[in-house]
Amino acid sequence: MYQFQCDYSEGAHQRIMDRMLETNLEQTPGYGEDHYCTQAREAIKSVLGRNDVDIHFLVGGTQANATVISSILRPYQGVLCADTGHINVHETGAIEHGGHKVLALPSFDGLLSAESIRKAMEDHLSEDGPEHTVQPGMVYISFSSETGTIYALQQIQEISSVCKEYGLPLFIDGARMGYGLASEGCDVTLSDIASLADVFYIGGTKQGALFGEAVVIVNESLKKDFRYFIKQNGGMLAKGRLLGIQFLTLFEDGLYFDLSRHAVSLALRIRDAFAAKEYEFLADSPSNQQFPILPNHIMESLSKDFRFSVWKSIDENHTAVRFCTSWATTEESVNALIKAIPPLYT
Amino acid sequence: MYQFQCDYSEGAHQRIMDRMLETNLEQTPGYGEDHYCTQAREAIKSVLGRNDVDIHFLVGGTQANATVISSILRPYQGVLCADTGHINVHETGAIEHGGHKVLALPSFDGLLSAESIRKAMEDHLSEDGPEHTVQPGMVYISFSSETGTIYALQQIQEISSVCKEYGLPLFIDGARMGYGLASEGCDVTLSDIASLADVFYIGGTKQGALFGEAVVIVNESLKKDFRYFIKQNGGMLAKGRLLGIQFLTLFEDGLYFDLSRHAVSLALRIRDAFAAKEYEFLADSPSNQQFPILPNHIMESLSKDFRFSVWKSIDENHTAVRFCTSWATTEESVNALIKAIPPLYT
Amino acid sequence: MYQFQCDYSEGAHQRIMDRMLETNLEQTPGYGEDHYCTQAREAIKSVLGRNDVDIHFLVGGTQANATVISSILRPYQGVLCADTGHINVHETGAIEHGGHKVLALPSFDGLLSAESIRKAMEDHLSEDGPEHTVQPGMVYISFSSETGTIYALQQIQEISSVCKEYGLPLFIDGARMGYGLASEGCDVTLSDIASLADVFYIGGTKQGALFGEAVVIVNESLKKDFRYFIKQNGGMLAKGRLLGIQFLTLFEDGLYFDLSRHAVSLALRIRDAFAAKEYEFLADSPSNQQFPILPNHIMESLSKDFRFSVWKSIDENHTAVRFCTSWATTEESVNALIKAIPPLYT
Amino acid sequence: MYQFQCDYSEGAHQRIMDRMLETNLEQTPGYGEDHYCTQAREAIKSVLGRNDVDIHFLVGGTQANATVISSILRPYQGVLCADTGHINVHETGAIEHGGHKVLALPSFDGLLSAESIRKAMEDHLSEDGPEHTVQPGMVYISFSSETGTIYALQQIQEISSVCKEYGLPLFIDGARMGYGLASEGCDVTLSDIASLADVFYIGGTKQGALFGEAVVIVNESLKKDFRYFIKQNGGMLAKGRLLGIQFLTLFEDGLYFDLSRHAVSLALRIRDAFAAKEYEFLADSPSNQQFPILPNHIMESLSKDFRFSVWKSIDENHTAVRFCTSWATTEESVNALIKAIPPLYT
Repeated sequence: MYQFQCDYSEGAHQRIMDRMLETNLEQTPGYGEDHYCTQAREAIKSVLGRNDVDIHFLVGGTQANATVISSILRPYQGVLCADTGHINVHETGAIEHGGHKVLALPSFDGLLSAESIRKAMEDHLSEDGPEHTVQPGMVYISFSSETGTIYALQQIQEISSVCKEYGLPLFIDGARMGYGLASEGCDVTLSDIASLADVFYIGGTKQGALFGEAVVIVNESLKKDFRYFIKQNGGMLAKGRLLGIQFLTLFEDGLYFDLSRHAVSLALRIRDAFAAKEYEFLADSPSNQQFPILPNHIMESLSKDFRFSVWKSIDENHTAVRFCTSWATTEESVNALIKAIPPLYT
Repeated sequence: MYQFQCDYSEGAHQRIMDRMLETNLEQTPGYGEDHYCTQAREAIKSVLGRNDVDIHFLVGGTQANATVISSILRPYQGVLCADTGHINVHETGAIEHGGHKVLALPSFDGLLSAESIRKAMEDHLSEDGPEHTVQPGMVYISFSSETGTIYALQQIQEISSVCKEYGLPLFIDGARMGYGLASEGCDVTLSDIASLADVFYIGGTKQGALFGEAVVIVNESLKKDFRYFIKQNGGMLAKGRLLGIQFLTLFEDGLYFDLSRHAVSLALRIRDAFAAKEYEFLADSPSNQQFPILPNHIMESLSKDFRFSVWKSIDENHTAVRFCTSWATTEESVNALIKAIPPLYT
Repeated sequence: MYQFQCDYSEGAHQRIMDRMLETNLEQTPGYGEDHYCTQAREAIKSVLGRNDVDIHFLVGGTQANATVISSILRPYQGVLCADTGHINVHETGAIEHGGHKVLALPSFDGLLSAESIRKAMEDHLSEDGPEHTVQPGMVYISFSSETGTIYALQQIQEISSVCKEYGLPLFIDGARMGYGLASEGCDVTLSDIASLADVFYIGGTKQGALFGEAVVIVNESLKKDFRYFIKQNGGMLAKGRLLGIQFLTLFEDGLYFDLSRHAVSLALRIRDAFAAKEYEFLADSPSNQQFPILPNHIMESLSKDFRFSVWKSIDENHTAVRFCTSWATTEESVNALIKAIPPLYT
Repeated sequence: MYQFQCDYSEGAHQRIMDRMLETNLEQTPGYGEDHYCTQAREAIKSVLGRNDVDIHFLVGGTQANATVISSILRPYQGVLCADTGHINVHETGAIEHGGHKVLALPSFDGLLSAESIRKAMEDHLSEDGPEHTVQPGMVYISFSSETGTIYALQQIQEISSVCKEYGLPLFIDGARMGYGLASEGCDVTLSDIASLADVFYIGGTKQGALFGEAVVIVNESLKKDFRYFIKQNGGMLAKGRLLGIQFLTLFEDGLYFDLSRHAVSLALRIRDAFAAKEYEFLADSPSNQQFPILPNHIMESLSKDFRFSVWKSIDENHTAVRFCTSWATTEESVNALIKAIPPLYT
């Protein structure tokens, strides 16, 4: 069985495992105050080319989202996001559990537009009695998005600009940041992200680590007391060095980006193979998630040897599915898949 | 200036004011444990024709909604409602502040369908890993709705039926319960409401009282410890007898229904007058709120002598507005309005 | 039966009732934006001798406390208060429901000391890893306190001073503000309160109104968007003018203070009568609540004609009880009580 | 420098690291639904000698506490615990963030008594208007406690009995469960815990794992939908197998208990060495945490070669400190410490 179901099926890259083993009996302070965390922060800052950011390591994405959003919003504020946004659909109401409404806006291909943010703000401000409705207090976007698509640099610039105009901090969920940056045609760099977002995180869990997300706080006014938020939200890992070791390994010499490119190049081979056989796609994804639309009988026959996600029913006879590659996907499994794709019409 | 802006512009019906004055220096226990509250509960039970319900008096609608919903849902559950539902759009996120996602479903004319509830449940249950999404835990509908429309008895029966099938308590927001029941063509009675809902409330604020909403808990399993919820949500009025006196006056001899009929009959005269002059309406409302669509120049000219709500822009030149009648609306003001409606085309 | 059980047994002062009746059919905007609210704000500002405060009217005390505290604290902060504070013991966890820990400190006679606040802050700041504990974020005191006692001006100055030193907003719960200010020996004025507190409220419910608490926000940085907090916490009264009318009547010509003095002078007569017969007291209260310690057989015999609260068991044979006077207490009932007090030893 | 500061300074036991390495590239489903988690659950059930429990693996203790407590309490309920309880003092208000008051009761040596639970319940139930106060809804105790002490079997039986009498689920925080069970004189077994608690967890983080706590739900009525709680609270680890692998290794052949005994025996040697030199202790701990009281000059001289925690100032000249051993503590370091302890009086 070849695995394309998700990007978190394996453990971690071998170099991470080796480093964990080597350092296993070393005694360090807990809670992210050890020297590996310090070094990992330095390595990331060096990649970002800036020193004026705060970096915190959390274990998972839902936790990172809930913690960051909790740290930004006032109680009566909500977070604007695409209706496909992870916080809106796949976090069991963690944001609402923290007291905040997720203000979902219509998305196109998983992306949010600057115009829709502007409209939401104008609608709110023009209300007769705005205090009867939730005040938009920040914007959340995902890079790459939940459907594999990415924003062009200009789109993020426009979003950032409208955010600044209305005083809305911009938070970028980077659970798949590396895969987004390595996407075909991507004109965005991690430095761009850092100069346009107020907060963002760099995902480790889906990108070669056992677990871990590196939250980068750029906006000075959002830095204060963030560790209290981490602890209160149950995200303060006792042996924080585990996170430091992993991010240090990923960022000290570019491993993170190498692994991202690996995954994307294999995903694009899968995309091209389906396209060559005239399959259509749910969205035009340039990254590590591909969503071909399969006739149901083909979906079934492929599922005998390949594991993938059933994404969305298109019509009675067709289903969009997701093939996901990762840092751990092998050439061999991609070759097998490509070989197995049947012609669309027979 | 004639007032049609809302149904809470005046104080209370004279009989309520008189009763408050008469009883003013009487000494009673606080917090809803006085004999007026007891009598008011009896009066409402008598109208409902049943004794097996718990009745609590709260001050306002947002408070009633937040308190009831907080008492029903588990932390990971959300409340299904129409996207036009008051809890979704006009309560500043009070439900989310209590930790719960409002699961808004597409509405038609402000109403929710049994089918959409069923679909939401099936979608949730059929997910691969439903625990990653908010579990629907109850259903909220408004009677009459926020756009003046009402459910037919059969529609509520269908909703109640699908709710029972999936174990979802049904909560009916009756901020305008009386106006709904008095609507043209309404085939629903308050007894029907009590036999189909698990909890509902009977609005006083917009229906002749100074303030107050009577929460009726029908479902045995939802009765326990409700007073704790009231207190925790800041809704335990110290001089609770003020609520008892008002609801006693409204329900001991049918005043509530008389006032409701009064308001609706005047609203229908307004509707008929606009219709006679070929105006169209945003929704086909049989109750005390009417939403004619006005050319903007007519909207402006009418606004010189009449106060009404601007509801929704229809196009560049037309706007839907709301004319609202209440227990306090006078024949005279309605006559003046009817006389002032210009022909649509001149 | 003579009533001394609490200070909210009756309705409202006759002048309030009259004004409500006179204005009953007037049409006004809702939600506190009517001209009575405006005038009431002006009347209070005039008494305070300052224009630079924001004033909002809420219905009840628990609601006022939850709303104000929610508007001040960040999610990881708690509120320092006396362990006898109303928010700690009698609000069913409303503050915790809003996400915040009540950080109760030992009280003396219902009061909090500047020293204990300083110690709490120093303890927190000196922790190795303060982010593992709740950060004190504000201070709550009651004037008069839950046990009838009052702070001397110097005590509040010291508390305010330590609050400023540590950046802790000071919030004064004035559910019984008038009774406190009218207390025997009180050297505090409402202007002092306004110059020392960051936020406080002036209670109406227990002081001559049907209901209502006037929240006064002094600190500029706490004013923003407060109406959102009111709405979200279910405290935005539709017919807000009811609050405006009441506070206007209480404050336009000193009625509030007259009523307070009336209640306190009667309470002191009760105190003196018990003292003259050598009864002891739970606390030395100079305000409208008196807590004599009664032998149980005397408690029982008095309870035949007088209603009062059982407060605290002192030992097997003695109980502290509470006699409460209010704006509505009559000379006659106090005379009857005084006459009925038996000698302590017979 | 010899490390006795805490029990989470190192990574994990070598066998855990080996197993992680071996399985690193295996592809498994996420979120705790893999076969390692299944096997780990079986291993723990086998040790417990019962099959009728649900087991879930979470990453950390604060998360486990917040998630379990959130799953048990109704919104107006609080959790009874010792004032020294971890949830009361060291979790940055995570429980309050979830909406619940921590009802701290006086502790003796870090323990809670059945009597104090009974008294808290009786006090609540005997209130005139209990709905004005937080209702106790469950009991939380720690085994071993935050100060190293343990409950005797009879004490837990008494606590469990009073809990059953009042319908309070009993939750045992077992962050140091193994060290507690291995304590000198302990007459409690893990099976006892399972038969007396409604929910408990078995700590991994401090007991040989990289991280992880195994929540065991015994009470049938608390099992429903627990995975929703985990996800909502940010505790659903994507690569859940990491938790499964660790707990499988710890429980398949008794490693967990071996490591616990190792730590405790070394701690007792430290205790005996201090006692032999006539030092006193803050509490009489039979487990892996020892709290000798040191003259400050001795504290300083020892701190040159040994790292330990400063726990509590006793008087001007004396301080209670904590020496903590763990699965990773070496004989050598204990020997060094014992040798270095100076006579108390010289």
